[in-house]
Amino acid sequence: MTMDQLETPTLILDEKRLDANIGKMREKLSRETMSLRPHLKTCKSLKVANKISLPGLESKITVSTLSEAEYFFEGGYTDILYAVSIVPQKLKRIKALQDAGATVTLILDTMVAAQQTAQMAQELKTTFPCLIEIDSDGKRAGLAPDDEQIPNIAKYLDDVEGLSFSGVMTHAGGSYYCNNPAGIAIVAEQERSAITQAADIIRSKNISCPVVSMGSTPTAFFANSFDGITEIRAGVYVFQDMVMQALGVCETEDIAISVLTTVISHNPAHNRVLIDAGSLALSADPGKKNQFGKTHFGQICNVKGAKVLEGVFVTSTNQEHGLISLEGTNYSLADFPIGSRLRILPNHACITAAAYPGYHVLKQNSNEVSDYWLRSNGW
Amino acid sequence: MTMDQLETPTLILDEKRLDANIGKMREKLSRETMSLRPHLKTCKSLKVANKISLPGLESKITVSTLSEAEYFFEGGYTDILYAVSIVPQKLKRIKALQDAGATVTLILDTMVAAQQTAQMAQELKTTFPCLIEIDSDGKRAGLAPDDEQIPNIAKYLDDVEGLSFSGVMTHAGGSYYCNNPAGIAIVAEQERSAITQAADIIRSKNISCPVVSMGSTPTAFFANSFDGITEIRAGVYVFQDMVMQALGVCETEDIAISVLTTVISHNPAHNRVLIDAGSLALSADPGKKNQFGKTHFGQICNVKGAKVLEGVFVTSTNQEHGLISLEGTNYSLADFPIGSRLRILPNHACITAAAYPGYHVLKQNSNEVSDYWLRSNGW
Repeated sequence: MTMDQLETPTLILDEKRLDANIGKMREKLSRETMSLRPHLKTCKSLKVANKISLPGLESKITVSTLSEAEYFFEGGYTDILYAVSIVPQKLKRIKALQDAGATVTLILDTMVAAQQTAQMAQELKTTFPCLIEIDSDGKRAGLAPDDEQIPNIAKYLDDVEGLSFSGVMTHAGGSYYCNNPAGIAIVAEQERSAITQAADIIRSKNISCPVVSMGSTPTAFFANSFDGITEIRAGVYVFQDMVMQALGVCETEDIAISVLTTVISHNPAHNRVLIDAGSLALSADPGKKNQFGKTHFGQICNVKGAKVLEGVFVTSTNQEHGLISLEGTNYSLADFPIGSRLRILPNHACITAAAYPGYHVLKQNSNEVSDYWLRSNGW
Repeated sequence: MTMDQLETPTLILDEKRLDANIGKMREKLSRETMSLRPHLKTCKSLKVANKISLPGLESKITVSTLSEAEYFFEGGYTDILYAVSIVPQKLKRIKALQDAGATVTLILDTMVAAQQTAQMAQELKTTFPCLIEIDSDGKRAGLAPDDEQIPNIAKYLDDVEGLSFSGVMTHAGGSYYCNNPAGIAIVAEQERSAITQAADIIRSKNISCPVVSMGSTPTAFFANSFDGITEIRAGVYVFQDMVMQALGVCETEDIAISVLTTVISHNPAHNRVLIDAGSLALSADPGKKNQFGKTHFGQICNVKGAKVLEGVFVTSTNQEHGLISLEGTNYSLADFPIGSRLRILPNHACITAAAYPGYHVLKQNSNEVSDYWLRSNGW
């Protein structure tokens, strides 16, 4: 089958670019001693996960939903970090995974959550390994690295029946607010410094802290040091996207997923092309501004080869309509015949991909669709 | 089953509010002579559609995807308007619906699309009824009402083998940019005036123009006149949402869908509550600004009764995290115990609902979940 035969809108995955992205991260981390625990919230696909984990290597993974945990465990992944603050209601499904043979590590950042989790563990007659989440940039969750509650919670996790203390983790979401690799390197060092500081404080209380986990795709690529780090988490690097491109983490030519769309009309009065990929097909995520300082909903490419049409973006979306304004570009409506097709590099790969049950996989950057890889969506 | 037993995040539909919303539109339109052709892109649910269409009434519907067309046809709806510009690649699925007994009306706004559709109709040995899309506000698709191509396209549709001309349609997306009902009434009159002008011009050329279709939820509610209009399309009114509330189309107490979420952590350093509903559970759609002039991702309510917590909004989202800043509110972290639950009224009901396979239906505004209604997502 070729791309021409697919109905639109649909999701395309370029296997050659995917392989190259996975190779780049492997190359970057090959010079380091810590392990990679890929975050599979982006791909939600066993076929992709199996490319990341080379045979013979450890197969540690990170997930963002219990559905992902169950899906990847079914696929053979047994060392799972569920990287969203745990609450008691979610523990029965975790226990079922443990009973089936999985090691699922949880994260928390309050004594209340620790106490609730311990109580549930005792009721379920099990032990949950836990990491304490550290806040390295004020953007989301976690305790500041010098928060005096950290050693107390670590000791509680270490001592209480039903829990065990495995270490500390952080995520520098702040790296997404940078503008270039130099800025990301600064955030990465802040991330490394925060998480190792927390680990040091815990160890100074004679509590063992085996895991020191940090990571995001930007900081994994641009950190100058991983000193004191035992594992790195990164997810979106397998696909890359326009946010990563705006950050300087990748080039548009690296972006492995795209939405295949059809030109459905022209609006000459406003010099706009209409396509059948709108908010549902692309997501309403405005991403980061492009090189012209404009918010957009995806970069337009041609179909074969996904060659970027310079300066052409999805400029606005409705539910099933995408609008491409040609104002200020070198293109005219005649370049986009009605019924012709385009590909769109999405702003945020994780969110766009979640609108589809799977990927049409392109064989080696050609027009030929070689496979369909399912995703595990939902919760 | 009660809401406490559901896993989060998940989608809740309050049947009492749904019924009231459907009743309000029916009441508004009962004073008019034109028919309602509900847009089912919002609900994508047969159970909801069957509440809109009272037995004995005509069952005309509007859809935004071919999947919706097929799903609702299976459910007994035979008069279907596919309200996105048609392209030849989509016509085989339309033909299959025709063969099964459906009447599917298409829309287009260029001579090129008309010619392409005619050619395909001739190949498929069928006739496709078509409406010409009119642009009443410059926001998306369609030809300006006085565009001289309109009578030419109408004549072509009327004459060419394989097509028939059914009339004109428009959608005043501009109503979403208003700030109050008075502004919406002005846009509604602009919409009515544009579409009837186009119909009049066509009729002046001795071409019959039976359908004059306009509509959006805001203009359906606030138009002062439907003079010359034969049918009105509206969709989101069945659920309502925070965009409609910001426009003055509904009150928060009318919003029938909500996302059930769990409080997963606190961040006292930033006075923030963390919940397990992020960009995938709520959508990344920033909607319209709230009464405090702030962008948000949903209004927070309590669980039972969905009573609004004044001034409390989802202030930012990541993939599986929602953040609620309590700065400037009358609430403190103690009001949101870890493990407790909340409901979120979404910005854009159509987009948020599309993240879920169906609705947990609440019995008459109680805590009790009486049913699960499936949706038809995808393309």
